[in-house]
Parts: sequence; C-alpha cells; structure tokens
Amino acid sequence: MTSGHVFIAASLDGYIAREDGAIDWLERFGETGEDHGYARFISGMDAIVMGRGTWETARHFEPWPYALPVLVLSQRLAGSPVPAGLEGRVRFSDASPAGAMALLAAEGHARAYVDGGQLITAFLRAGLIAGMTVTLVPLLLGSGRRLFGALPADLALRHEETRTFGSGLVQLRYRVGPEP
Amino acid sequence: MTSGHVFIAASLDGYIAREDGAIDWLERFGETGEDHGYARFISGMDAIVMGRGTWETARHFEPWPYALPVLVLSQRLAGSPVPAGLEGRVRFSDASPAGAMALLAAEGHARAYVDGGQLITAFLRAGLIAGMTVTLVPLLLGSGRRLFGALPADLALRHEETRTFGSGLVQLRYRVGPEP
Repeated sequence: MTSGHVFIAASLDGYIAREDGAIDWLERFGETGEDHGYARFISGMDAIVMGRGTWETARHFEPWPYALPVLVLSQRLAGSPVPAGLEGRVRFSDASPAGAMALLAAEGHARAYVDGGQLITAFLRAGLIAGMTVTLVPLLLGSGRRLFGALPADLALRHEETRTFGSGLVQLRYRVGPEP
Repeated sequence: MTSGHVFIAASLDGYIAREDGAIDWLERFGETGEDHGYARFISGMDAIVMGRGTWETARHFEPWPYALPVLVLSQRLAGSPVPAGLEGRVRFSDASPAGAMALLAAEGHARAYVDGGQLITAFLRAGLIAGMTVTLVPLLLGSGRRLFGALPADLALRHEETRTFGSGLVQLRYRVGPEP
C-alpha cells in the first residue's frame, strides 16, 4: 500500500485557513528567505492526493506547480473532465482513502503527499498516514478551518525532529502510530 | 496590572483534556524523569488564577499543591466558603479577567499563572496574557476540551524557545502580542 505523508502549516491554535479559505496570515512566512524544507519533502514523494477544497485553490495556480501526478478525491468532481492543460497530470476520483492508496500502489507509487484538512483526517482515520510534518505559525487565529478533526480513538505519534526558524515558525516532524 | 502566564500541556490536535476532563493520556509523561520546567516556571509567579473546571480537579489534590495564593474565578462559587483547610490560600471571586488582575496588582502580585482552557481564552481575549509555554504531547486525541477558543481577531505571538524531550514532548515558549 502507498504510504501517506503530510506537510502542512497551521496556526498555534490549529487552523490551516480562515473560515473562507484565506491563508493571508501564512503568506508572509513564505517571504522570509528561510528554507522550510518543502522541496526536500516533495522530492521524497511520487504522487499527490488532495481533496476538493485544496483542488479549488490549486487549480488557479499559474503555472501548475506540481511535477507529480495529482489525484483529487471528490465525489462531486469524479467523472467530470479535468481542465484543459492538466490532462494526464490530474485525475478526479471518488475512491475512498484506502481505494486511492491501492490505486496508487498498483501504479507503482510508494509515497503520496496527502494535502487538505478534511482529507488528512480521513486518511488518519483509515490508518494511511505514515508521517506528518507540521509547521506551527506563531499566531492565534481564533477561528477557521482546522487541521485535525475527530478520530475514533487516540492516535500515538513518535516525535522525530523539531526545527525552529528566525521567523518564529516551529516545524515538528512525527511518525504516526505506536512504536512498531 | 498583573501579567498572566500560561504553562500547559496539549495534544498535537489541541486538547488539554478528554470531554469528561480526564488527563489519563497525559499522566505517563509525568513519569519519565524529565524536567519539563514547571518548578522553574512557578518560581517566577506570585499568584495563581484558575477557572471552576480547574478548581474542581485541583480541590481533590492531597496535599494541596500550591504555595501561592489561588484566585478561583467563578460566578457560581463566588460568595460561598472555601473548603476547610484552604482558608487564606484560596479565594472565590466573580471578577472579570481584568478585575481579577487589578485585584492581584493592588495586592502587589506582578505575575499570575493562569490555568484552565476556558479561562486562558478569556484572558487572551482581554489582552492579559504576556507569555505562554505550551507542551505538545505526541498524540492525537480527536476530541476533548480544547486549549484555545474563539478570538475576536488574530493574536500575534513571538516565539522565544522550543525544547524537545526524549519522551516526544515538544515545549514551545511564546511571548504574546506583536513586537513592541
């Protein structure tokens, strides 16, 4: 089975976007000149899985930023054509998290970047996330879209490394699941 | 005005207790032999402010663990007598956060430990928290009582230091508010 990997930024109070999806509060941290490790992270992945919310933001990126094949999981989008120019690079699917990972595994993909708040929790619930890098932004938003949602039971993490940056970002890296 | 200071542990998904108040998931991290800095933190405080929820847990501690004067903010408890043995060490008050801090300031207290999820957010909303030490537990609980609640606006933090522990705890220390 393909393993899922998370690389995401959140406010200290656990939000990844405002209620309307805005990430204005995050953008200035992308302009610090600091290397927060995204390039290194993505170089270890060979596919991307995202939800519809993330897709609705990503589809407007110009140029298209992803070299890896992107699988968008959405019951609403499944069966509809992908926008011109993205054929062969983006697919829409109504697969379950496990179905998506089985599909990617059958295609030879070992490690998938799983992006988007609701999708991350769905994959965590299904036991499909192997590692998480969470970058905490020094800010309380007080409301918005949460990184983590409800789980059926406690999920143990194993802390691997934490890096701090002059901008105030703190990046935590965990393996997911109890000690093997 | 007395300044407020937070020292609290939370799961990575932002919970300080289960829905029923249980902290069983936290207790094993107190038995690691690691020094997480509580003694040093409390040595810099000269009063404690807590909400009713925290009081309801603390009142059963035997022996009473706090050398500092404790102010319990509760409309329900205000006016009722404190339990035998705690007279002069605990007070109940229906003061607002600002009223509580003004009372403590008039008594000569400079720095107060503010404890309890709902109270911390109330004090953050009132601009009365100067510093926060948040210790992240390597665990997703998926539900429970949240550390942070709703705020009327973004609240900037200044990261001061992060410490990591062999147990997997990561302790972040922030100043609250924008650069002076």
